[in-house]
Amino acid sequence: MSAIFATPKKNLMLFSGRAHPELADQVAKELDVTITPQSAYTFANGEIFVRFEESVRGCDAFVLQSHSAPINDAVMEQLIMVDALKRASAKRITVVMPFWGYARQDKKHRGREPISARLIADMFLVAGADRIMTVDLHTAQIQGFFDGPVDHLFALPVLADHIKQKYADRDLAVVSPDSGRVRLAERWAETLGGTPLAFIHKTRDPRKPNEAVANRVVGEVDGRTCVVIDDMIDTGGTVSKTAEVLLREGARDVVIAATHGVLSGPAVERLSTCGASEVIFTDTLPIPEEKRFPGMTVISIAPLLAEAIHQVFDDGSVTSLFDGNA
Amino acid sequence: MSAIFATPKKNLMLFSGRAHPELADQVAKELDVTITPQSAYTFANGEIFVRFEESVRGCDAFVLQSHSAPINDAVMEQLIMVDALKRASAKRITVVMPFWGYARQDKKHRGREPISARLIADMFLVAGADRIMTVDLHTAQIQGFFDGPVDHLFALPVLADHIKQKYADRDLAVVSPDSGRVRLAERWAETLGGTPLAFIHKTRDPRKPNEAVANRVVGEVDGRTCVVIDDMIDTGGTVSKTAEVLLREGARDVVIAATHGVLSGPAVERLSTCGASEVIFTDTLPIPEEKRFPGMTVISIAPLLAEAIHQVFDDGSVTSLFDGNA
Amino acid sequence: MSAIFATPKKNLMLFSGRAHPELADQVAKELDVTITPQSAYTFANGEIFVRFEESVRGCDAFVLQSHSAPINDAVMEQLIMVDALKRASAKRITVVMPFWGYARQDKKHRGREPISARLIADMFLVAGADRIMTVDLHTAQIQGFFDGPVDHLFALPVLADHIKQKYADRDLAVVSPDSGRVRLAERWAETLGGTPLAFIHKTRDPRKPNEAVANRVVGEVDGRTCVVIDDMIDTGGTVSKTAEVLLREGARDVVIAATHGVLSGPAVERLSTCGASEVIFTDTLPIPEEKRFPGMTVISIAPLLAEAIHQVFDDGSVTSLFDGNA
Amino acid sequence: MSAIFATPKKNLMLFSGRAHPELADQVAKELDVTITPQSAYTFANGEIFVRFEESVRGCDAFVLQSHSAPINDAVMEQLIMVDALKRASAKRITVVMPFWGYARQDKKHRGREPISARLIADMFLVAGADRIMTVDLHTAQIQGFFDGPVDHLFALPVLADHIKQKYADRDLAVVSPDSGRVRLAERWAETLGGTPLAFIHKTRDPRKPNEAVANRVVGEVDGRTCVVIDDMIDTGGTVSKTAEVLLREGARDVVIAATHGVLSGPAVERLSTCGASEVIFTDTLPIPEEKRFPGMTVISIAPLLAEAIHQVFDDGSVTSLFDGNA
Amino acid sequence: MSAIFATPKKNLMLFSGRAHPELADQVAKELDVTITPQSAYTFANGEIFVRFEESVRGCDAFVLQSHSAPINDAVMEQLIMVDALKRASAKRITVVMPFWGYARQDKKHRGREPISARLIADMFLVAGADRIMTVDLHTAQIQGFFDGPVDHLFALPVLADHIKQKYADRDLAVVSPDSGRVRLAERWAETLGGTPLAFIHKTRDPRKPNEAVANRVVGEVDGRTCVVIDDMIDTGGTVSKTAEVLLREGARDVVIAATHGVLSGPAVERLSTCGASEVIFTDTLPIPEEKRFPGMTVISIAPLLAEAIHQVFDDGSVTSLFDGNA
Amino acid sequence: MSAIFATPKKNLMLFSGRAHPELADQVAKELDVTITPQSAYTFANGEIFVRFEESVRGCDAFVLQSHSAPINDAVMEQLIMVDALKRASAKRITVVMPFWGYARQDKKHRGREPISARLIADMFLVAGADRIMTVDLHTAQIQGFFDGPVDHLFALPVLADHIKQKYADRDLAVVSPDSGRVRLAERWAETLGGTPLAFIHKTRDPRKPNEAVANRVVGEVDGRTCVVIDDMIDTGGTVSKTAEVLLREGARDVVIAATHGVLSGPAVERLSTCGASEVIFTDTLPIPEEKRFPGMTVISIAPLLAEAIHQVFDDGSVTSLFDGNA
Repeated sequence: MSAIFATPKKNLMLFSGRAHPELADQVAKELDVTITPQSAYTFANGEIFVRFEESVRGCDAFVLQSHSAPINDAVMEQLIMVDALKRASAKRITVVMPFWGYARQDKKHRGREPISARLIADMFLVAGADRIMTVDLHTAQIQGFFDGPVDHLFALPVLADHIKQKYADRDLAVVSPDSGRVRLAERWAETLGGTPLAFIHKTRDPRKPNEAVANRVVGEVDGRTCVVIDDMIDTGGTVSKTAEVLLREGARDVVIAATHGVLSGPAVERLSTCGASEVIFTDTLPIPEEKRFPGMTVISIAPLLAEAIHQVFDDGSVTSLFDGNA
Repeated sequence: MSAIFATPKKNLMLFSGRAHPELADQVAKELDVTITPQSAYTFANGEIFVRFEESVRGCDAFVLQSHSAPINDAVMEQLIMVDALKRASAKRITVVMPFWGYARQDKKHRGREPISARLIADMFLVAGADRIMTVDLHTAQIQGFFDGPVDHLFALPVLADHIKQKYADRDLAVVSPDSGRVRLAERWAETLGGTPLAFIHKTRDPRKPNEAVANRVVGEVDGRTCVVIDDMIDTGGTVSKTAEVLLREGARDVVIAATHGVLSGPAVERLSTCGASEVIFTDTLPIPEEKRFPGMTVISIAPLLAEAIHQVFDDGSVTSLFDGNA
Repeated sequence: MSAIFATPKKNLMLFSGRAHPELADQVAKELDVTITPQSAYTFANGEIFVRFEESVRGCDAFVLQSHSAPINDAVMEQLIMVDALKRASAKRITVVMPFWGYARQDKKHRGREPISARLIADMFLVAGADRIMTVDLHTAQIQGFFDGPVDHLFALPVLADHIKQKYADRDLAVVSPDSGRVRLAERWAETLGGTPLAFIHKTRDPRKPNEAVANRVVGEVDGRTCVVIDDMIDTGGTVSKTAEVLLREGARDVVIAATHGVLSGPAVERLSTCGASEVIFTDTLPIPEEKRFPGMTVISIAPLLAEAIHQVFDDGSVTSLFDGNA
Repeated sequence: MSAIFATPKKNLMLFSGRAHPELADQVAKELDVTITPQSAYTFANGEIFVRFEESVRGCDAFVLQSHSAPINDAVMEQLIMVDALKRASAKRITVVMPFWGYARQDKKHRGREPISARLIADMFLVAGADRIMTVDLHTAQIQGFFDGPVDHLFALPVLADHIKQKYADRDLAVVSPDSGRVRLAERWAETLGGTPLAFIHKTRDPRKPNEAVANRVVGEVDGRTCVVIDDMIDTGGTVSKTAEVLLREGARDVVIAATHGVLSGPAVERLSTCGASEVIFTDTLPIPEEKRFPGMTVISIAPLLAEAIHQVFDDGSVTSLFDGNA
Repeated sequence: MSAIFATPKKNLMLFSGRAHPELADQVAKELDVTITPQSAYTFANGEIFVRFEESVRGCDAFVLQSHSAPINDAVMEQLIMVDALKRASAKRITVVMPFWGYARQDKKHRGREPISARLIADMFLVAGADRIMTVDLHTAQIQGFFDGPVDHLFALPVLADHIKQKYADRDLAVVSPDSGRVRLAERWAETLGGTPLAFIHKTRDPRKPNEAVANRVVGEVDGRTCVVIDDMIDTGGTVSKTAEVLLREGARDVVIAATHGVLSGPAVERLSTCGASEVIFTDTLPIPEEKRFPGMTVISIAPLLAEAIHQVFDDGSVTSLFDGNA
Repeated sequence: MSAIFATPKKNLMLFSGRAHPELADQVAKELDVTITPQSAYTFANGEIFVRFEESVRGCDAFVLQSHSAPINDAVMEQLIMVDALKRASAKRITVVMPFWGYARQDKKHRGREPISARLIADMFLVAGADRIMTVDLHTAQIQGFFDGPVDHLFALPVLADHIKQKYADRDLAVVSPDSGRVRLAERWAETLGGTPLAFIHKTRDPRKPNEAVANRVVGEVDGRTCVVIDDMIDTGGTVSKTAEVLLREGARDVVIAATHGVLSGPAVERLSTCGASEVIFTDTLPIPEEKRFPGMTVISIAPLLAEAIHQVFDDGSVTSLFDGNA
């Protein structure tokens, strides 16, 4: 006999970096798996070390890490995990980054700038990633930065469901906080059932060059419950200003909804005092207790991630997770 | 003596595919060079053959081709030219594509779609391109699809200058024909000196699922000269409808401006009859005599390309071509 | 429990571009599968769009496209399909190109030419192809242009069988239409049972530089049924001249046989009037009704392709398809 | 029905170059497989040809070759086998090189030197290797030269077991023959149960620049059975001098142990006459009869290789082969 | 005229990340250049942004960054700078990392570990680095991790000069703090003129498994000034213990010398109280005032870096910087 | 001042492996350069070591090595030289292989064979070669195996000149020794001024399967001086049989001409006794004294190589070396 025959097996293993353990725990629970035990620690100079405590040979690895602050540590830890998986003979490595770090630097705004979102894609490719799973990219074009499959999940239907149920009796308007998100706002408006649309137009008086900009509302908002949407909220400056302008312009009330709660610096202060009646996020990024306030709602992204991971493992159609028209 | 010493030379050579010879001629004239002579022909089954008639060793090659219809022939011819240059020892190969073919397919709109704009980038990379020069990308993120320098030139200042001079005495408004170009419209509004902004919002009545969509104007356009802008106009359906809606809503008159005149099928018919008083393009794509009509203005992109090519050859700063804030 | 276990599945899916649907249908029928439904259309400027209507995750994809005229569209469509399959997580992608486009440009005949056949290989590699299946390459070295497995199928046995049966009682001679196909002619001669060999030698009288060339027959053809062979026939100039020369030199009659019927321009006219009693092709390329004439025989390549696809899917030995000594 | 379904198979196939057939036979026997039959011969000018006699489609291939003298032929033959496997559609290719050729050239000792050990890794990568299995690398960093999994097996426990059993009643000391192997000696000392350590320090009298170097023993060796260790022994100069120095310094007796017996030139002469009572190797490299002498012990590495190959095929944990602390 | 001719220029530009501005300033001063002005800032969530204020087209770029704590930020900033330089058409990009981050993770010590030092090399390669310049690698093999030229500079001669001058009248011994650095110690001993050698051997009593290890001195140190050497000192545990053991064993006094002062956590406390009379570093990593203490000497690496950068720019021989035998 | 400016230099350096020092010396003499001094030696187990004795930074390196027996050593030495040049910062590396090793294995003749000629190309690419220069490839398609420029020089004009002068008064015929070289023979016939053509057709009597083959001459040779041509002669079996057959069939006399004299095993014996009046080679491969015999003529290829190297260095047109129609 000239060969040994065997039946191939296929096993899903879940790995988690240390950036957002609560989310990993929830995803594991949804999947009914244990997170693969590992030793992970940070040396005094910041170098990260990771070692898996179980054999990973031939596994279908899903490596979950939120790119939360301090983001470079989160990214580097995930890269090191991918390198270790590659060298330990994992069969396929899917990088799960609910928030794609550096997504805002997806183009050169001016000359001599980096395109860091592409650099992120290339670093994971060179480390050994076969595929990427992510949620609500800053721009959908970022998918094209990775040379391989990218499963791009949408949290919008989850967030919109919450609003549809809670504000079923209101006259809604969807508002984009600036001119670059109007297309996203339109997708929201469609999901919410064809609501009107508005956006904030920042203008500079050309005769007074050093004067501050004015924020004009373009579109009808008077008397309506305005849903201000965005993919992520970082320091909260733009959306909180938007809320104020909308209320000033006669909006009945303002609800803010975004997928990624980066929430750095003055964000919590601004959001909680801008007049919005509710601020809604998913937990793609960790939102610790001290950043939560009464009007904030956090909806878990874990069921969506778990379902997508399961579909990818099973070669099912992830497209079905993207809502009907995704 | 153990080595031969010499002084390195540096020479710019310009190459042109057969898609848009007028543009190549103009660029050559602006640069004061001759287009490198070549044999190029198409076999009966569509296969393209190219051979350069002069040595290209060590040259700094700029290969100009407009990705005009039939686009796959234009792309393939340019790829074959790059392959021939690589194998003939050109020192550096810059692909000049005034219009980046397949730029609209820059993301998966739904599952199981290609990202053809990335494929274009990868095909030129594998053929041997060192760098790409292009004008007004459909989305700026496409720069990140290429693993190398991309010189992204802006035609907007050239087009806006024309409008500023011709319509200096009017009350202008900049209008985006859909929700995805509002950011571009804002950049136009800024360049024109802080004009108001509007866009067309397509809505579907959720209670009548199979009914046609309605186009609502969001923003103030009454009594104004509306400048409808876009990066490209293909069949002209959206912009011509936009012109009609604007006039119906009280616009004084409508001017349409776009960088790339793809102008397929019914485009000319629609544009010339939609009520717009002027339609402005650059010649990044060829616009033959039979597609021209009285209200059309075509502004040459050749000076911009020639200047950029010269700067790249000289290691000057192309950024200065992008207007002050580019 | 730390992992989810499952039994891996393996499923063959067949995809077809729009260049030669009849062949795809036949292959599908032979395999007893349905061609995966897809949306494919061409925009007015020539851009091609493809989307698959079913999930392709984890499948063993075979993407069939004939590189027929207009060849650049056929190639580009197949590349776009490969890109979409890669991004939609197909497990393995086999590009089936019965005729390898640009195969004639497999070397630099002179300086500053491309090697377009290699470019084709690299473009499919960068798009995501894992392997290529093809029939009767112009030169077998082209296999080495692709960095991966190439299943090179031979149609010669199929064509030769036809001749052996039909002309069993004749004295045959195999004739190469030029000096570059003599090795191929020898393989034919062997398959037909050791027939004599001849070829056409084009000579130029060195004393009359601008005079036309003469075609000398080298080898014995007098009184024989001459089988003129080639891998492909494009405009038919060389083979039809060959037929005339052979008849003039005393051949009893002439049969022309080639794998790929490119048949451009004057080919049909030439072939049907050159005096050959039969002209035989396979259908690796579509031969529409209007190109067929009484003396033409077309033998389907579908059974060979279907069998090879099945073997590749099953990890069987494709070598057995190459006849005994292949 | 739109697809064909099948159950994937998985089969291990063993391939062997011609450098060390005895080892391949033993590994095959341990695994209970037949070495895949192949035609392999060397043309008169040294070119090597290999062809497999059975289908290898879809197999999990393990390609065993010892990098023994003439080493370039051994390396080239293995590369050619990998190329043939890649082009014949093997599913996964593991290169088994019990001794990694050129491992000593793992860094630039001075400027303008190659790093040939990295070149070896890259050549196998480009030929198509997916993974490498090797034994006792000259330096463990060499693992990092390959962009993929490297299974690094340790022969030390096997060699140490032999010594522990045979010299259980002696006072042992582990001796590194130079300053670069002290870390390895420490690992031996630990495995042998905490023995003392020594090394040979080569010094040059700075006042007599052209004088020969002196070898000082650093550490206690008087009255002890000294185990001189190394990863490989080539010409045997250093270890045989070490043995002499140790005996002169009062060692009771000397045992030499190394994984790789390169044994070129004067090695056998030196080892058999240096006063060592036993010289121990594994058979990672062939040690022909004429190089064997009474005091030499050769321990087979085949069980370790076979076990590792089986584990890799089965996705078991190879780490367990590396002893407790590996 | 068919081409434009010009004389190529060559210009060195120096770039610096924000990790160690003092070193960059010194290198700039030695080279007599200005550090290229740039905007660099860190967003609240840790994302880094860099933009160069001057054109970098065609320049020979040297990008200096010390991989000091927080190391992942330092590495990421340097990667982003390389990406921006690549996309802005720098001609050649040399990454200057005086200390190669993650150098200690240069191999898998056990299964399922990463090889992070290789990952660092690959990340810089994919970002666009053409070459790397570094000082005193943890192991010289790391050079082989990068697919391109690595200029590996040695600080040892600089440090040794200081000791030779200051301790000219003493009887020196060079001591390696563990078994893995004995080869380095031997190189020091040679540079210092042939001094004796010793090292610390950590042993574990095999009969008392959970007992602490004992540190034995192997070699002669009694009455000597012991120079304890290492490539880097992180928390200082090993070297400070070494100093104590040496003094206990009769050393006259102890001098500690290392290239890279990582100096995390308790390092300063330990070094200043371990009994060493002097502790010597270079400034490849920043050593802030608060970490300095009376017995510490810091020697600048800037002259060595500046000289090497100049030689690389001039295509001179960097080897001459490596001391006579480098 | 923010940058250092300098004028770039360009210097040609010639490097030679040890396979054919006479050729290297001649090329150096023609170029008027010294071969760069290097240390090169072979360890007892066959490992090769090379180090350059002078700085090679920034040079335009030409690395000459004949792939003569033992060919794997010749190839490996050249690869190691390329690796060392890459790591030592040579600016451009041109691999000069007058005979491309393994060129005969340029395709899979049957399943499960390697394509070693492509492997050679890939190994040099991965080692760091930028370009290849070679003479008279076995098939011109091999150029396409390398992803970069290949300068393919032709020795045919040199050899043909010799024949034209020496046999000016004869009636020549050009004869291909088998069916695969007829195209080459035609190119010879053209160069010699339009001579007749013939080839040897090996036939097997199909009714006697185990009988020896018969060699039929196809074409007119009676009374002519037959020039038997080939690209290389290895063991000389085919050409010597051809000479015998031709003389038997009435040829006046026979001259054999080939570019590459591999000349292994019985070649010299066969060639000197087959009846040919002259046997002509170039010295792309070394032909030592003991292989030379009275009727052998060896024409140096050094002038052609030197001229081509000079043209490549100077960015001149190498095409001019290929004769008028090359």
